[in-house]
Amino acid sequence: MHISEITHPNQLHGLSIRQLEHIARQIREKHLQTVAATGGHLGPGLGVVELTIALYQTLDLDRDKVLWDVGHQAYPHKMLTGRYHNFSTLRQKDGVAGYLKRCESKFDHFGAGHASTSISAGLGMALARDMKGEDFKVVSIIGDGALTGGMALEAINHAGHLPSTRMMVILNDNEMSISPNVGAISRYLNKVRLSPPVQFLSGNLEEQVKHLPFFGETLSPDMERLKESMKRLTVPKVGAVIEELGFKYFGPIDGHNLEELIATFKQAHAIQGPVLVHVATVKGKGYEIAEKDQVGYHAQSPFDLTTGKAKPSSKPKPPSYSKVFAHTLTKLAENNPKIVGITAAMATGTGLDKLQAKLPKQYIDVGIAEQHAVTLAAGLACEGMRPVTTIYSTFLQRAYDQVIHDVCIQNLPVFFCLDRAGIVGADGPTHQGMYDIAYMRCLPNMTVMAPKDEAELQRMLVTGVNYTDGPITMRYPRGNGYGVPLMEEGWEPIEIGKGEILRNGDDLLLLGYGTMVYTAMQVAEILSEHGVEATVINARFVKPLDSELILPLAQRIGKVATLEEGCLMSGFGSAVLEMLQENDVLVPVKRFGVPDILVDHATADQSKADLGLTGSQIAQTLLGEFVSQKQPSAVS
Amino acid sequence: MHISEITHPNQLHGLSIRQLEHIARQIREKHLQTVAATGGHLGPGLGVVELTIALYQTLDLDRDKVLWDVGHQAYPHKMLTGRYHNFSTLRQKDGVAGYLKRCESKFDHFGAGHASTSISAGLGMALARDMKGEDFKVVSIIGDGALTGGMALEAINHAGHLPSTRMMVILNDNEMSISPNVGAISRYLNKVRLSPPVQFLSGNLEEQVKHLPFFGETLSPDMERLKESMKRLTVPKVGAVIEELGFKYFGPIDGHNLEELIATFKQAHAIQGPVLVHVATVKGKGYEIAEKDQVGYHAQSPFDLTTGKAKPSSKPKPPSYSKVFAHTLTKLAENNPKIVGITAAMATGTGLDKLQAKLPKQYIDVGIAEQHAVTLAAGLACEGMRPVTTIYSTFLQRAYDQVIHDVCIQNLPVFFCLDRAGIVGADGPTHQGMYDIAYMRCLPNMTVMAPKDEAELQRMLVTGVNYTDGPITMRYPRGNGYGVPLMEEGWEPIEIGKGEILRNGDDLLLLGYGTMVYTAMQVAEILSEHGVEATVINARFVKPLDSELILPLAQRIGKVATLEEGCLMSGFGSAVLEMLQENDVLVPVKRFGVPDILVDHATADQSKADLGLTGSQIAQTLLGEFVSQKQPSAVS
Repeated sequence: MHISEITHPNQLHGLSIRQLEHIARQIREKHLQTVAATGGHLGPGLGVVELTIALYQTLDLDRDKVLWDVGHQAYPHKMLTGRYHNFSTLRQKDGVAGYLKRCESKFDHFGAGHASTSISAGLGMALARDMKGEDFKVVSIIGDGALTGGMALEAINHAGHLPSTRMMVILNDNEMSISPNVGAISRYLNKVRLSPPVQFLSGNLEEQVKHLPFFGETLSPDMERLKESMKRLTVPKVGAVIEELGFKYFGPIDGHNLEELIATFKQAHAIQGPVLVHVATVKGKGYEIAEKDQVGYHAQSPFDLTTGKAKPSSKPKPPSYSKVFAHTLTKLAENNPKIVGITAAMATGTGLDKLQAKLPKQYIDVGIAEQHAVTLAAGLACEGMRPVTTIYSTFLQRAYDQVIHDVCIQNLPVFFCLDRAGIVGADGPTHQGMYDIAYMRCLPNMTVMAPKDEAELQRMLVTGVNYTDGPITMRYPRGNGYGVPLMEEGWEPIEIGKGEILRNGDDLLLLGYGTMVYTAMQVAEILSEHGVEATVINARFVKPLDSELILPLAQRIGKVATLEEGCLMSGFGSAVLEMLQENDVLVPVKRFGVPDILVDHATADQSKADLGLTGSQIAQTLLGEFVSQKQPSAVS
Repeated sequence: MHISEITHPNQLHGLSIRQLEHIARQIREKHLQTVAATGGHLGPGLGVVELTIALYQTLDLDRDKVLWDVGHQAYPHKMLTGRYHNFSTLRQKDGVAGYLKRCESKFDHFGAGHASTSISAGLGMALARDMKGEDFKVVSIIGDGALTGGMALEAINHAGHLPSTRMMVILNDNEMSISPNVGAISRYLNKVRLSPPVQFLSGNLEEQVKHLPFFGETLSPDMERLKESMKRLTVPKVGAVIEELGFKYFGPIDGHNLEELIATFKQAHAIQGPVLVHVATVKGKGYEIAEKDQVGYHAQSPFDLTTGKAKPSSKPKPPSYSKVFAHTLTKLAENNPKIVGITAAMATGTGLDKLQAKLPKQYIDVGIAEQHAVTLAAGLACEGMRPVTTIYSTFLQRAYDQVIHDVCIQNLPVFFCLDRAGIVGADGPTHQGMYDIAYMRCLPNMTVMAPKDEAELQRMLVTGVNYTDGPITMRYPRGNGYGVPLMEEGWEPIEIGKGEILRNGDDLLLLGYGTMVYTAMQVAEILSEHGVEATVINARFVKPLDSELILPLAQRIGKVATLEEGCLMSGFGSAVLEMLQENDVLVPVKRFGVPDILVDHATADQSKADLGLTGSQIAQTLLGEFVSQKQPSAVS
């Protein structure tokens, strides 16, 4: 059977191992071709081809529920559930999403882009099933990396307490999250991976031990004591932690052996309570280059399949914000031993691997554990260190209470550097960094800033590192800077709460924040062609807003427009409205930003255009209704 | 030595067991007297009197750091660190706080009101110590309830991975959080509690086993296999899970035996890596009535020491919002088997214990695990259930990403009921429900509402339960309702996004939200005495705002004031500003709410007065600068 004939996963039922292996090869081929062409997650999906096929042979996906944690490991799932034919549209606008989405397929039983959610959601479905008196299987597949997220552990703690609630957790153990895993759980799992499976022995081991001749009617008090101790030793070490937590444990099994996988899943399905199947997989399996560099090939931009090398882009690009950030931070840290860079399993994404390489003692990777990362930073700050907590905007949502309760309430000088703030492009709604302006600016003691370009990022980084009066946040976008000149040292801090005027004009006051400052300049230039002269301000700080600078200009010019790359509700523009209202400045305002919708995957430029956030779109909107053209001419 | 002579905890050094026992008795006495008079947390502190004294005899609190998780178990700590004399001001305005606060004492090394943070913060301090090349001890004391919070598990996973980082975790195991614990970890700990300590035996157990005659040179393949298995059995079961996670384990020890505690702490301090001391304590120890009812005496309003009964309040009060909520929810659930009430270890606080008693199958307590609670609810919603996720406003901060990523992005019909929204009174800044309007309203697909009184809460509860188009949130305050008539059945849902006019007037438009609607009516009455007639609107929904109702009135009346009990930044008033701006309605607005500060502990009424949020204060402010009096007369 060719995979293109599979439109429903139940078509796998009854196929022979040889037929399944054939399908596995086809999935790998398509997987590799597609990601090489479009970019996307490579290693995670390649590692679970057999796991997916074997599991689906033992399930009825019209009834049973499967929850893929994070979702980036679900490309094989997508190909087996009707999306093989358009799989080449992966991560492109209107194409197949890079993560799971309930609205994309009835087989995507639960969407996911962030880690550690699948067991909680699966348990919810299992409990609902039992409440409704229905009967279907629920399987949550979680990576060993995602298992270190506190939420997954909360879910295991709960599920293990419900001995009669049937649910299966498959631990996809590839010894990695994006980077090698951090933590004691990972070390424990590695130890377990190296042991032979024991689940067949463990059942009656206690009985066997009891009947050993040595443990008959005995002996001295010493021996008696030893016997008592031995009785408590009857849980085998392999999987013992899992079993103590209430799960029946199967494994470790070879995640690329279809026969073993199918046999084990069948056995495990028969268990009437929570069960965990520990599957050892190889990230990037079947593509040698990826197997050898599992960090580099976790996710990829388009690349050449034969060499594994990234395809050269048409023209050389300026460095990314992340790269400038990491380079500058490392320079600063060299001269300040108090600086500590903290990441939650995003060393490569944030660029902190650079700091790690150069100054390993000033670098901490806590694993996928954002809550812990933030409160750990609070502890470091108490002791006079300068924690630079570098987390994607979307992932800091996972530590909101820690930001409030442990940092802001205690007014501790933790520096939050939010990478991927604003529109993120191909990763889609789960990863958009839309809400950070809103959720950070309402917190007492917090200062919130954003640079207009990568050179200003350098200055704000110095600003944040030197600021010890309380917590401070800097947001910056995914992707490349503008190619402005960078400094190698001697960056000048920016005064807290001070914006700057970039352009003068009497007809309109344009307030730009972060990435939208250059857009504001573009807007001003287009308006100027139509005889409308705008003053442009780089606000720099949304909190504290530079009221000294902005209020007199707003008053005098009489018309204000705000530009931001974030949700309009509660965002930068709202902060401006609040300031104007508090100071009794009654002038018309237009706010440009992301409206109250989810922004789907596409390129960042496509998304901005869809949202009407390009310079020419904003200029047109303003000319159409807000400012009157003084010299009529066509809009460029 | 009398405890009143102790102003520094190091004064405990060198005291005899008998002297320490004497101090323990005095602490208990003061603890009981104070909480009986002022109200506060009773059981937690009484359970750790000996633990605190013993620990402080082995520490130098001028150098060493102690982190009390949650902080409500730290009353003995407060009495031993210079706050004995004013301890009777507990939880009162300008008095001793009910939780730990860095600004209250140099011995409060880390503040805490929420659970599960102490290990993360402690590890941060320990890492800072090592980076700075300093040498002091770090001790985090965490309850077994707080240990189920994912963040604590993230921290253990990290600390257990750092074998050379010295830190001590004391597990204060009283088998309870506020209610009996939920989860597999708790079950495991209970098992461990029942076993005798084994740490002295375990060291050389492997050696002993190897030399048993039975395991010499042997036998059949079966026996060989058994032998291999036995070799893997050498980790003793007691504490095994902890040790697998990289901690050296001591315990369980009797938490009320000073001699044993001191000896064990001394031993444990000598360990060069992470160490966990498992201390078995009795919640409410020394006060028989509290020992017998550990749930009831976790925290108390003022009570009679002899009988243990709450002191009758001066006059009968209307039922609390929580009580009306729980009663109504239980009624609804009786007629709708799809309704499931979810709590995160707050059964009594939220009133859900009522649902549990009546309909245990429609009730889930997940333990202190808000993240899991929310995504579990998402899973339930996927399967057509109606999860009513009841969490204090301040605690939902702990599950912000789950609200966004698992609920809003998937547009799942989860009903969030936020108790303790707004000013909470004696619990202080860590528990204020200030931010929920701001952090919920900016999320796509979310509906956000608040009732003006307990009767409207009933109607909104029905509204939320019947609403299946997406997620919906209702916030309501701590404390008593207004005593308005309640219905026992037949509650009419409220149309989504529809406010109501409560009063008509042409001089000012007063928009009240939630608890501030009655205040708005008061304001209107006072204004009326001064010839200013206000229209009063109960907004009901901050999202969607009732623009159809509000905009024409704002336009016509020309002056707007907004009233809310939450942070002004990004709050209800900001939503009104946004709406006016988007619709080009340019009118002056005054916003009343909580400014950008932390609100300290006090009674809720005191806090409101301090913030200028009483009806007469608001009226005065408005008369002073915003509306002109038509018939001059004194402000009442």
